[in-house]
Amino acid sequence: MGMVCLSDFEAYAKKYLPKIAWDFFASGADDCSTRDENILAYKRIRFRPRMLRDVSMMDIRTKLLGTEISFPVGIAPTGFHQLAWPDGEKSTARAAKAMNTCYIASTYSTCTLEEISAAAPGGLRWFQLYIHRNRAVSQQLVQRAEALGFQGLVLTADLPYTGKRRDDVRNGFRLPPHMKLKNLEGAFEVCKMSLLDPSVTWNDIYWLRSLTHLPIIIKGILTKEDAELAVRHGVQGIIVSNHGGRQLDGGPATIDALVEVAAAVQGRVEVYLDGGIRKGSDVLKALALGAKCVFIGRPALWGLAYKGEEGLQEVLRILQDEFRLSMALAGCASVSEIGPHLVQFSKL
Amino acid sequence: MGMVCLSDFEAYAKKYLPKIAWDFFASGADDCSTRDENILAYKRIRFRPRMLRDVSMMDIRTKLLGTEISFPVGIAPTGFHQLAWPDGEKSTARAAKAMNTCYIASTYSTCTLEEISAAAPGGLRWFQLYIHRNRAVSQQLVQRAEALGFQGLVLTADLPYTGKRRDDVRNGFRLPPHMKLKNLEGAFEVCKMSLLDPSVTWNDIYWLRSLTHLPIIIKGILTKEDAELAVRHGVQGIIVSNHGGRQLDGGPATIDALVEVAAAVQGRVEVYLDGGIRKGSDVLKALALGAKCVFIGRPALWGLAYKGEEGLQEVLRILQDEFRLSMALAGCASVSEIGPHLVQFSKL
Amino acid sequence: MGMVCLSDFEAYAKKYLPKIAWDFFASGADDCSTRDENILAYKRIRFRPRMLRDVSMMDIRTKLLGTEISFPVGIAPTGFHQLAWPDGEKSTARAAKAMNTCYIASTYSTCTLEEISAAAPGGLRWFQLYIHRNRAVSQQLVQRAEALGFQGLVLTADLPYTGKRRDDVRNGFRLPPHMKLKNLEGAFEVCKMSLLDPSVTWNDIYWLRSLTHLPIIIKGILTKEDAELAVRHGVQGIIVSNHGGRQLDGGPATIDALVEVAAAVQGRVEVYLDGGIRKGSDVLKALALGAKCVFIGRPALWGLAYKGEEGLQEVLRILQDEFRLSMALAGCASVSEIGPHLVQFSKL
Amino acid sequence: MGMVCLSDFEAYAKKYLPKIAWDFFASGADDCSTRDENILAYKRIRFRPRMLRDVSMMDIRTKLLGTEISFPVGIAPTGFHQLAWPDGEKSTARAAKAMNTCYIASTYSTCTLEEISAAAPGGLRWFQLYIHRNRAVSQQLVQRAEALGFQGLVLTADLPYTGKRRDDVRNGFRLPPHMKLKNLEGAFEVCKMSLLDPSVTWNDIYWLRSLTHLPIIIKGILTKEDAELAVRHGVQGIIVSNHGGRQLDGGPATIDALVEVAAAVQGRVEVYLDGGIRKGSDVLKALALGAKCVFIGRPALWGLAYKGEEGLQEVLRILQDEFRLSMALAGCASVSEIGPHLVQFSKL
Repeated sequence: MGMVCLSDFEAYAKKYLPKIAWDFFASGADDCSTRDENILAYKRIRFRPRMLRDVSMMDIRTKLLGTEISFPVGIAPTGFHQLAWPDGEKSTARAAKAMNTCYIASTYSTCTLEEISAAAPGGLRWFQLYIHRNRAVSQQLVQRAEALGFQGLVLTADLPYTGKRRDDVRNGFRLPPHMKLKNLEGAFEVCKMSLLDPSVTWNDIYWLRSLTHLPIIIKGILTKEDAELAVRHGVQGIIVSNHGGRQLDGGPATIDALVEVAAAVQGRVEVYLDGGIRKGSDVLKALALGAKCVFIGRPALWGLAYKGEEGLQEVLRILQDEFRLSMALAGCASVSEIGPHLVQFSKL
Repeated sequence: MGMVCLSDFEAYAKKYLPKIAWDFFASGADDCSTRDENILAYKRIRFRPRMLRDVSMMDIRTKLLGTEISFPVGIAPTGFHQLAWPDGEKSTARAAKAMNTCYIASTYSTCTLEEISAAAPGGLRWFQLYIHRNRAVSQQLVQRAEALGFQGLVLTADLPYTGKRRDDVRNGFRLPPHMKLKNLEGAFEVCKMSLLDPSVTWNDIYWLRSLTHLPIIIKGILTKEDAELAVRHGVQGIIVSNHGGRQLDGGPATIDALVEVAAAVQGRVEVYLDGGIRKGSDVLKALALGAKCVFIGRPALWGLAYKGEEGLQEVLRILQDEFRLSMALAGCASVSEIGPHLVQFSKL
Repeated sequence: MGMVCLSDFEAYAKKYLPKIAWDFFASGADDCSTRDENILAYKRIRFRPRMLRDVSMMDIRTKLLGTEISFPVGIAPTGFHQLAWPDGEKSTARAAKAMNTCYIASTYSTCTLEEISAAAPGGLRWFQLYIHRNRAVSQQLVQRAEALGFQGLVLTADLPYTGKRRDDVRNGFRLPPHMKLKNLEGAFEVCKMSLLDPSVTWNDIYWLRSLTHLPIIIKGILTKEDAELAVRHGVQGIIVSNHGGRQLDGGPATIDALVEVAAAVQGRVEVYLDGGIRKGSDVLKALALGAKCVFIGRPALWGLAYKGEEGLQEVLRILQDEFRLSMALAGCASVSEIGPHLVQFSKL
Repeated sequence: MGMVCLSDFEAYAKKYLPKIAWDFFASGADDCSTRDENILAYKRIRFRPRMLRDVSMMDIRTKLLGTEISFPVGIAPTGFHQLAWPDGEKSTARAAKAMNTCYIASTYSTCTLEEISAAAPGGLRWFQLYIHRNRAVSQQLVQRAEALGFQGLVLTADLPYTGKRRDDVRNGFRLPPHMKLKNLEGAFEVCKMSLLDPSVTWNDIYWLRSLTHLPIIIKGILTKEDAELAVRHGVQGIIVSNHGGRQLDGGPATIDALVEVAAAVQGRVEVYLDGGIRKGSDVLKALALGAKCVFIGRPALWGLAYKGEEGLQEVLRILQDEFRLSMALAGCASVSEIGPHLVQFSKL
């Protein structure tokens, strides 16, 4: 079975994953309109490709907060990788390292941070944090991550409560008994996400700042107002994200929100994006509209479901090849040549 | 059978109601384009959700003309509840009271106003009025309602004649013999709605005013011109409504008309909306665009059809939970924080 | 079988007419996109209905060039009515007279003008003219029509050649041997429409003017430039028409073109429309946007196919009832109250 | 089997060609969205047809760089015609000559330039060039073409690398062993297109200029910036093209890009278009928006697949008849009367 594009991995995962796991990964909130918009919005953006530029030497590398990665696609934080593949986040870490890109490990990993670190020593990793009501739990996680060499701290801002994903409710979704949220074990019983703290505010950025020397990246920003607040509160990066359409249904596609956020930020901090990336040309569109890098969520899980770290590497390699080709066909030989002149919003 | 969202109740009602009753409740006028637009229009509105605001204490209460309700969703006036559930409007009244919200009882109820009052003493209720050619009938209804403790009088303005609902014509719809328009019994034979008075004008607001001390709410306004007239004629509230798309097909979705009406009214009277509410986030959009409260029509009937007052309570509880969650995910801890900054109209 | 709306007649005709006749009536040019746009364009127009206006006395009459008709819907010129019903245009004439409206008889009728006149003496009729290469033929037709009491001359401007209707090509469409283009019999062999004159220009209006005292109405105008030319050449009326989408595929829907034409004409001559009228509310939209009257083509043929003159009367009666109801629900008691304030173009 | 419109040929080709050949001709890059947009974009353009203009004498001829052709539709360069019909490009050349139009022969022909020339002596032909890493190969091709009487040199600018056509990857597409890229035989092994030179820039236009007296036409321009560069580098013509949607998926429809390019060029050089032409009215739209001529790619291959040169002639004849009829119905008697006043972009 030859995997040609990311949809092939999606079809595989849908066919071979247990329904409850597929549904958990696939579902969006309510009517899934934001989840679907994330993808549809790319189709309304048209390239303005330039011809007869020397694209014989292609350089698709970029830097995340100063650290070089092989191309501007990283792994977004998603939970429960063991639902997709027995080795779980260890496989994810190995694939990301092999492809020389960044992996954002989730608080809700089914492997410990220590296992993740040991699986792929020296890989570029950031740690994604939910702030718990019991702040000591969060503090300890941050400090463990820093000690283990994680190089960034990603604060998820859009989950004061969990979105309503109808399929999960219908399925009565919960982790199988042999899987654990290992990073939270011992701290408390964490099956219920209601232990997250819905009273978190911008001031908690200062608290986080006091805990760690790691750069802080805020994830879940969709408006210029919040982008401005993020910059003012001293974050180093912003991930434009709607949590894959799993939180507030009816929010904007991330590629649409990116335009507003990038215009507000004006290069003061790095801006990234996740949501709806399915082809190399989607990456190119996101970069043209102001993203320094994008992160993939569900496609990474499909890759894991297909063949673990090997499958995820294949997903990344396909995206890399497609991105390089799209760049060349648009007339860009390096990411520094990508800019807003490359795209326009279609009337339809 | 777990009911997760309002569509589940719709599917149930479609399956278990007699076709003639389902058709009566479901049908819109002509091609049903306005009925369908009521729902589609919400999908063109995008949230601009705000992050990192303290949403640990959620307050979703609001007030209708000074009276507190538990959340900004009431029961719109619809006729013939016994078609959905044997206890008819008595069940509706009980559910509304149990959920601490407002129920607008229809002139075309299959229970008397007295039965409705007795079923749920002390509940917040308004009475919906059609003006009949025989004004004495209407006068008597208004005064009965006031005497029974109804707290508002809702004048329906968009039914000088009944819209053309093709399915009802094909089905030869009429009430089964064991059901009656009980509030009109004895007054005259009322099977034909043609006894309604199509000569009603704005001046009749003054006539109504002379009959009762109740606040007058006008239902069916869709333009700024009529909103201005309503305010000038001294109404206390306006329900932006197209009668669920059952009257003039081709009119605007109510959520679209709300923008125009709210801009004209400028807060001088309260503005409400019915039509197309299917999720808690729809309620949030309506409030963001200027509604003080929304009312549900068909979803209430689906709830009744499912399990009478218990089913309707379940519908309301789901909407309440979804509304609270949407508010929180949009960054609002109380309804006073909801405003037009929360939404934008999408280009598509 | 109860006929509730015009679609019911369409379904009947599609089921019971010979395929070759159905295809001939139904087909549009090329991809049929203009034919379909004629209908879709109405769905993009939204009413702005006004409430609480006295609509107890409805007056839906209008005047065509000074002659009163019962409501603003006439019969557009279409050919070959015997394909739909044995009595052909005689039935059409009777139905139009019975409903007190205007029938535009086509050059390509399968009954003679004399038969049409005799079938419904005193009915309001206009005669539709194609100009033939042999001008004597056209002159004779015009003068016969005038002598028979036809009250208007409708010059079709959009058929220098016949549009490409794929189904007719596939079917090898031609009239069955027992039907004739009776008005042209004896003059010449007319099976081929190529006898029409593609060199006709605006100056031929002057020639027509010299032949007859009848008012001249020009049919097929879609631009402001041609509307201006029509007025300057002294016509009494303009029918905005794209020949039911049967000529140039890709032209505008007539309801869209009406806006441009009405703005150019500024009331100097009467403006009418045909194309896409399927409901009473479509008529109301056309009048709101500047049409004095509309004409129905295919729906008239469906009515004939159903039950001859009786079927066509039923079509007209349904349209009349729907139009009256739409007017009332929009707050208009007479056609003089209809205006552009009643509608807006939707964003979608 | 009567062929009425180009879709009939498409259906035939899809049914009778080997799947691998059909897929190769049909496929676009990635999601095929640009391929499909090429067609959809025409549907958003509306004619503004003019009436009562003398269209009895129709003149549909035009000139390509001074050479008259029978109507403004030529054959775009496409590869591997033997996949469609045994005689391959020889049949194409014969059909183009018979219809008195221009055929652009591809570098990737399965017949030699000499065979093509001999098949239809005196026909108007241009030669399409890919520039190879080994410039001597390209030089020799250009000089052979010129010597053989080809009258134009078409440089393809949009293929520094081959686009990702998923079906070709899945099918493992390659030419059957009995077919050869005959023009490149002996020069080197050319199964791999990677021998194309991705370092080509605008300066290579000067190099080409130095090799030949032929006019140079550049193919693949989609932006005003590149159009300006093309003019400044001295080309004689520009073909607005996205390679049938086979290169960068997400680029604009060519009919949309034409507007931008024609506005930039301002008549300084001739502008042509390929992509999405399926009807005579599409040709008319392209000319109205500034194209001097259009070229057909896939439809020519369908014609070949149907009946070789005879089939391709039939395709061209149908387009010619449709184009002439569309012109007449739009009120144009010669191509010089076609202009931007004939069209408008629809709101939908």
